[in-house]
Amino acid sequence: MTTARSTNAPAGLACPPVTTVGIIGGGQLARMTHQAAIALGIQLRALTPRATDPAVSAGATHHRGDHHDLNRLLALAQDCDVVTLDHEFTAPDLLDALVDAGHDVRPGPAAARFATDKGHARRALAAAGYPIPTFAEIANGDLAAVDAFARDHGWPVVLDAPNATELAVLVARRPAGQWTAYPVVETVPHAGTGREVVLPARIPPFLAEAACRLAVSIADGIDAAGILAVQLLLTPTSDLLVSDVAARPHDRGLATIDAVTTSQFENHLRGVLDWPLGGTALLAPAAATVTVVCPAHPIALHHRLPAALEDPAVRIHLYRTSPHPGREIGHVTCLAADHDTALDAARRAAATLVAP
Amino acid sequence: MTTARSTNAPAGLACPPVTTVGIIGGGQLARMTHQAAIALGIQLRALTPRATDPAVSAGATHHRGDHHDLNRLLALAQDCDVVTLDHEFTAPDLLDALVDAGHDVRPGPAAARFATDKGHARRALAAAGYPIPTFAEIANGDLAAVDAFARDHGWPVVLDAPNATELAVLVARRPAGQWTAYPVVETVPHAGTGREVVLPARIPPFLAEAACRLAVSIADGIDAAGILAVQLLLTPTSDLLVSDVAARPHDRGLATIDAVTTSQFENHLRGVLDWPLGGTALLAPAAATVTVVCPAHPIALHHRLPAALEDPAVRIHLYRTSPHPGREIGHVTCLAADHDTALDAARRAAATLVAP
Repeated sequence: MTTARSTNAPAGLACPPVTTVGIIGGGQLARMTHQAAIALGIQLRALTPRATDPAVSAGATHHRGDHHDLNRLLALAQDCDVVTLDHEFTAPDLLDALVDAGHDVRPGPAAARFATDKGHARRALAAAGYPIPTFAEIANGDLAAVDAFARDHGWPVVLDAPNATELAVLVARRPAGQWTAYPVVETVPHAGTGREVVLPARIPPFLAEAACRLAVSIADGIDAAGILAVQLLLTPTSDLLVSDVAARPHDRGLATIDAVTTSQFENHLRGVLDWPLGGTALLAPAAATVTVVCPAHPIALHHRLPAALEDPAVRIHLYRTSPHPGREIGHVTCLAADHDTALDAARRAAATLVAP
Repeated sequence: MTTARSTNAPAGLACPPVTTVGIIGGGQLARMTHQAAIALGIQLRALTPRATDPAVSAGATHHRGDHHDLNRLLALAQDCDVVTLDHEFTAPDLLDALVDAGHDVRPGPAAARFATDKGHARRALAAAGYPIPTFAEIANGDLAAVDAFARDHGWPVVLDAPNATELAVLVARRPAGQWTAYPVVETVPHAGTGREVVLPARIPPFLAEAACRLAVSIADGIDAAGILAVQLLLTPTSDLLVSDVAARPHDRGLATIDAVTTSQFENHLRGVLDWPLGGTALLAPAAATVTVVCPAHPIALHHRLPAALEDPAVRIHLYRTSPHPGREIGHVTCLAADHDTALDAARRAAATLVAP
């Protein structure tokens, strides 16, 4: 039913029929999804309370409303061929209600529940035999977290720096089962505020293949549609542990806009519409993405932008989120012949953007 | 003055100040310019009579009005940091009036006049010593065109198939003079309805360099800002003749969205805002773009789209123009290891889109 609006498209109409995708939420992921929707002639409709939200300022049709409001969710679904998600804050019961009313919701409530309820996901992964971490990161002095961890796993606990490499595999999948996996992404450990990733991950090919197999098997297991982002920890003993799963475009996949044939945003649209998926080949030997986080000091982003663009190799993406300290306000991607060159350039541009 | 709106941007505002670009016209070039504007957080405002126009359906702010209406042009300019053009139908006098009123118009009226008035451009190029064709293409039996050509050049005229290769060089330029040239584009002669181009042009490097030098020197000569598209004819005797000049993003440069670090649309924005220009390196050994023209028979574009997307290597762009026969409604780009592979794939997808 996803192309019902366009099936009977006659020629010669002033306004040609259009495929319409509803998205619950209007943040930066919805903004970049709208940007991808433009190329395919898809109309994106974003359900969000604020007309100033990133997706709406980019041009997604604004459905004013809250993601807790079933009536507004139903009104959105009624206007769209399929409904998808920009975030994980919608109660699975409400998604069930949309499906019960005959609407296509993708990822389906089961996959969405998996991504929303971390405890459920952990239990389901463990029950299905997936390797999951039996350690937790403990912030400075957070004894309550130590206690909670011990309640889950039993005393004694060993406090240690796990020294694992953070990886992520993004899988695009159609309901029919077709899938494609993006090059494995590696998070760079560092002391700054923005997240830094490079791809392809600097790991042996057999581990990259194992990471992809793991992610694809989870995507198949929960019948994912669109992007499924599987975060993994690679331990010093070469074990791969599943640390998180998100059923939507993901910040670890931001580099795909510039570095890969088909961005995660376009493939999310294609996946949820049950359309053929686009290629996921890297267009350069290496790529890096640094997220730009709003600092505590005043910034003048657009005043700094020209200086940040001085390096012709960097690709800058600004979200037009309101500039609250700590909020992600953009990201910088760079393609290069090697990881360090790409990362250095992206870092410099990101730092320039938020310089005092 | 182009960043005046963002110069004093304080932190903590709910709506951060935004750079705003006005564009006269709302067609597919404005649509793709809006798509590029999203990444840089730029607000594009499009002056066009129709809310259904491609740029507006993609999310550019709609300034309802006609490009012949000075009051509407002034109202647009008042709301924008700089005004640019999606087409060449605005009378140069009106652009002069905007400049006289203190607004930034880029390309400036001189460059715009050059692109609008073909006779003026021809005379100016010839006076400056540029090689221009002394032949014209004559359609079947068009004796009036033969007569007009002879009036320009004198009798006798030689009727011949010129057998020249059509090339195009797109130059991005800042008012300050910084420029970057895209890889030379070659138009593929063929019998179909859609235009077919490949890049880089299959010509010796010395000719590609000469073509770039020629285009850059014209851009400098008319003080271009943003994209200047210079079309050239390469004769069998390796002469390069300037056949047309357009002072805006151009259909010959559509491949740059997918095939080059920075698209012509983003570099047009950066150029007219006097911001540093982005890189123009090709991301693959070869690329091809085929434009999709609305056929005379009824089509159901969105119904055909999934079939056209079957090849994971093709990149499809639909404009949501109203489907009148003969109108360009989209284009398909493909990157590949060689020109023929790219062209074949793009052709197949384009044909699938408009199949009866």
